[in-house]
Amino acid sequence: MKSIKNNETAVFALGGLGEIGKNTYAVQFQDEIILIDAGIKFPEDDLLGIDYVIPDYTYLKRNADKIKGLFITHGHEDHIGGIPYLLKQVNMPVYGGKLALGLLRNKLEEHGLVRSTKLIEFGEEDVFKFRKTSVSFFRTTHSIPDAFGVVVKTPSGNIVHTGDFKFDFTPVGEPANLAKMAKIGSEGVLCLLSDSTNAEVPNFTMSERKVGDSLNDIFRKVDGRIIFATFASNIHRLQQVIEAAQIHGRKVAIFGRSMDNAITIGRELGYIDAPKDLFVDTQSINRLPANEVMILCTGSQGEPMAALSRIANGTHRQVQIQPGDTVIFSSSPIPGNTLSVNKTINALFRAGAEVIHGALNNIHTSGHGSQEEQKLMLRLIQPKFFMPIHGEYRMLKMHEELAIACDVEPENIFIMSNGDVLALTEDSARLAGRVPSGDIYIDGSGIGDIGNVVLRDRKNLSEDGLVIVVSTIDKKRNRVVSGPDLISRGFVYMRESGAMINEAQYMLTRQMHRKLASGPADIGVLKSDIIDSLSSYLYDKTKRRPMILPVILEV
Amino acid sequence: MKSIKNNETAVFALGGLGEIGKNTYAVQFQDEIILIDAGIKFPEDDLLGIDYVIPDYTYLKRNADKIKGLFITHGHEDHIGGIPYLLKQVNMPVYGGKLALGLLRNKLEEHGLVRSTKLIEFGEEDVFKFRKTSVSFFRTTHSIPDAFGVVVKTPSGNIVHTGDFKFDFTPVGEPANLAKMAKIGSEGVLCLLSDSTNAEVPNFTMSERKVGDSLNDIFRKVDGRIIFATFASNIHRLQQVIEAAQIHGRKVAIFGRSMDNAITIGRELGYIDAPKDLFVDTQSINRLPANEVMILCTGSQGEPMAALSRIANGTHRQVQIQPGDTVIFSSSPIPGNTLSVNKTINALFRAGAEVIHGALNNIHTSGHGSQEEQKLMLRLIQPKFFMPIHGEYRMLKMHEELAIACDVEPENIFIMSNGDVLALTEDSARLAGRVPSGDIYIDGSGIGDIGNVVLRDRKNLSEDGLVIVVSTIDKKRNRVVSGPDLISRGFVYMRESGAMINEAQYMLTRQMHRKLASGPADIGVLKSDIIDSLSSYLYDKTKRRPMILPVILEV
Repeated sequence: MKSIKNNETAVFALGGLGEIGKNTYAVQFQDEIILIDAGIKFPEDDLLGIDYVIPDYTYLKRNADKIKGLFITHGHEDHIGGIPYLLKQVNMPVYGGKLALGLLRNKLEEHGLVRSTKLIEFGEEDVFKFRKTSVSFFRTTHSIPDAFGVVVKTPSGNIVHTGDFKFDFTPVGEPANLAKMAKIGSEGVLCLLSDSTNAEVPNFTMSERKVGDSLNDIFRKVDGRIIFATFASNIHRLQQVIEAAQIHGRKVAIFGRSMDNAITIGRELGYIDAPKDLFVDTQSINRLPANEVMILCTGSQGEPMAALSRIANGTHRQVQIQPGDTVIFSSSPIPGNTLSVNKTINALFRAGAEVIHGALNNIHTSGHGSQEEQKLMLRLIQPKFFMPIHGEYRMLKMHEELAIACDVEPENIFIMSNGDVLALTEDSARLAGRVPSGDIYIDGSGIGDIGNVVLRDRKNLSEDGLVIVVSTIDKKRNRVVSGPDLISRGFVYMRESGAMINEAQYMLTRQMHRKLASGPADIGVLKSDIIDSLSSYLYDKTKRRPMILPVILEV
Repeated sequence: MKSIKNNETAVFALGGLGEIGKNTYAVQFQDEIILIDAGIKFPEDDLLGIDYVIPDYTYLKRNADKIKGLFITHGHEDHIGGIPYLLKQVNMPVYGGKLALGLLRNKLEEHGLVRSTKLIEFGEEDVFKFRKTSVSFFRTTHSIPDAFGVVVKTPSGNIVHTGDFKFDFTPVGEPANLAKMAKIGSEGVLCLLSDSTNAEVPNFTMSERKVGDSLNDIFRKVDGRIIFATFASNIHRLQQVIEAAQIHGRKVAIFGRSMDNAITIGRELGYIDAPKDLFVDTQSINRLPANEVMILCTGSQGEPMAALSRIANGTHRQVQIQPGDTVIFSSSPIPGNTLSVNKTINALFRAGAEVIHGALNNIHTSGHGSQEEQKLMLRLIQPKFFMPIHGEYRMLKMHEELAIACDVEPENIFIMSNGDVLALTEDSARLAGRVPSGDIYIDGSGIGDIGNVVLRDRKNLSEDGLVIVVSTIDKKRNRVVSGPDLISRGFVYMRESGAMINEAQYMLTRQMHRKLASGPADIGVLKSDIIDSLSSYLYDKTKRRPMILPVILEV
């Protein structure tokens, strides 16, 4: 990092700015880099066929020797999902809370990385000292246990990263450590990086405890089976619904692999407290009376392959909706999933279930603090400089206004993009160039082998399909020996469009003969002629623009 | 309709039940069919490349001689968009309010149908009498002027169709005719078909007038340019924002074809009242001071090609965001558009604009009544039988509960699907079979030529692309004379995957030679061998499943 002076501390993100996802932040002083989180992002619809998005790790690869470690704030995918991909490129010790490491261990096993990775568990009181920097923590509340903020002590001053947080004063797990945050603030904070997710939401986010109350109200009233869907990682929610089941005399059957995992890890590590005999295997639910059954399942986002969607569509092997069933969506749809959640809800209603969903029933609450909580964090930490993180641009922008309202100097606030570097001394801050950054697409086992060309092709293919024109020509005798034949996929149903296809074939045949008759063929010209005439013919006939792929073989 | 008895009136929908879109309803008594609305639906994301969806008109084609006319409740696309496609299959007179016909006329011109179509304008007092049935109207309030409910008088009794409605007691246009609805109700209604869109929304929908107040508040405070985006068809909204512009000394420049159309038609027909010199051409906005400019544009749903998206991305030829600009989204995103609206808002913030959006600012209200308004309709009309329409299944279901709460007998409520036929006498109702119904896809100029096979291909292509294997064989000598060559699109970037492609090619070459050496080739077997071995090879290497298309030419 040439642009950084020897007395400056660099703070930057490879992911997490201008987006919710692939959170990856770094604090660097001279030859020491502290990494915070390494998440993935789930692609939006326009990234056809892409499974995940990770950041460009180029800077980390180039500076591998400087990295002291990766510190995980909590165990959500957008904070730990990138770790296997990062570790394959740069090995480094990974520090995390108990649950985050528990979830990570599964992931590393899948990628064959368990042996080669040093995992170090931390608690709130731990401090990790390096030569020039040190790292300590403070406990926060979030929609997963063991959520921490991180303090990186540097010679320039203390950098505080909140992780994801809300202020839940009546949480299901341990409360946030307000006293420690206040102490950190009083001792002086150079720069705060704070979660902006709910910066557009006024007031205070509802307590998780309130969700438990609502669930108990519902359980009291319902006579039939209860089918409960939520995020598997929301261990607090799972604990609450399991308690409700126990209180109201229901056995719990678990459907969906990630839900199974979450319950297993949650119980192993002591985050879920429930007697063993509360759980029944999936076969036995049909032998129990309806009012003694709770089905706990994945699929609250309408994911087509998840347990709940298959139950809704009637394609689940073990669970069919029966009269009197009540399905609870203890979740809110993330923006890209609204339609699929809608579909699932409609299918459940159609199948005869009651469905309880939506914010009105108090059966879900966000894990992120709203405006008053973001202000509380700002007042506790009292930073000199402020960088809103973890949010779309509009949220970062709104968070800036909250910071100004809490007496951060407007010129001390930096709304940055992934790759932008902020250089800090104890009394100054400046933008100091960029490190490489960008989106790397993961599709199947391929990492970064899908670029814009391939995505553009997928988009074209998805809208109008393709038509292949195949022909063999005899180059010596300068004549067509086979074809041109037309083959299409995703364009029209060929059998019903025979006349059009025949006419196109006739046209292309005449065109090729004419071309070849006039002299030795240039294959490139022959192909571009086919594309030109066929695409304008087909557009004329159908107002569609399929991809046209001429294949000319020579014998 | 064989299953219907001579004394029964049939009521059914070809579109609009279990969905919001392609509303098309019919009331039939013996040989008289009254059609109500003929809308389109905008496809959800899984219908790749499809432009619109219309209902299957088979029943109407078969019974063309019985159709007395099509009656339009109002001029929204989901109520009139299907008319050109319907008229191409069955000619019939079309009855509509002034604005609906104005909007329809444009559409018919594009399709070359103006001359062949008889358009009859109606007002609220008109009654159209046929031999056995008659049709009359009552005025409602909705997010477009000239919205009507329809009463079809039949020998079995009166059938009432609400159209889309809210009860806006302080509307911008004419108020709903409560007295007439009450009178219709008092005279006896056999069956009510009522708009279910907001059946899940408690209370009463906000008045359009309130939006005007909020707009005036905003206009009072803003010093820079105002860029205002809304649905072009919401003529009331346009009237209000134009008034606000006038009051606060701003000239209006219009961007976007549909907005231009709406203003032109609205002014021509007298729905928009504004002095001519309030409007300026798009070039002159740069010559006016910022606080004297309002830009009125399309794109409130984040549509990529609309004016606002191009302004946001910096690709609009005439309008660039400048400091001090305020963009107002006077709309709420429909579920499928949340992500694209988000993108547009972020891009506008990034470009330096202030953005006002969302329900909190009272700058948008729904055109559909909430639960209390649906109950008010039920109390006014007092139907014997009830059919909730115009909504997803969950909404129809919720509307049922509202009807029960308003004293409709539970067994007199029919939640139906498109194509289901309800047979009514003056004191009975029964489900009486089905008429053909289904979704017909429009893609480019093709109607119904895209089926599930083509859509499945598009989906496969969009996710993993395709690989074409081309080879020419000499059938007489039983040997490969050219290829096999591999060509891919949307799979991997070939240049960077050379080794994999070469290896695959080598494998296929050996396979083909082996096959041909062992005897005369069966092209089908040759192809399926290629698919098998290549797909498992590529899955192994990439964990992807591209479509594999073997093309074998014979010479």
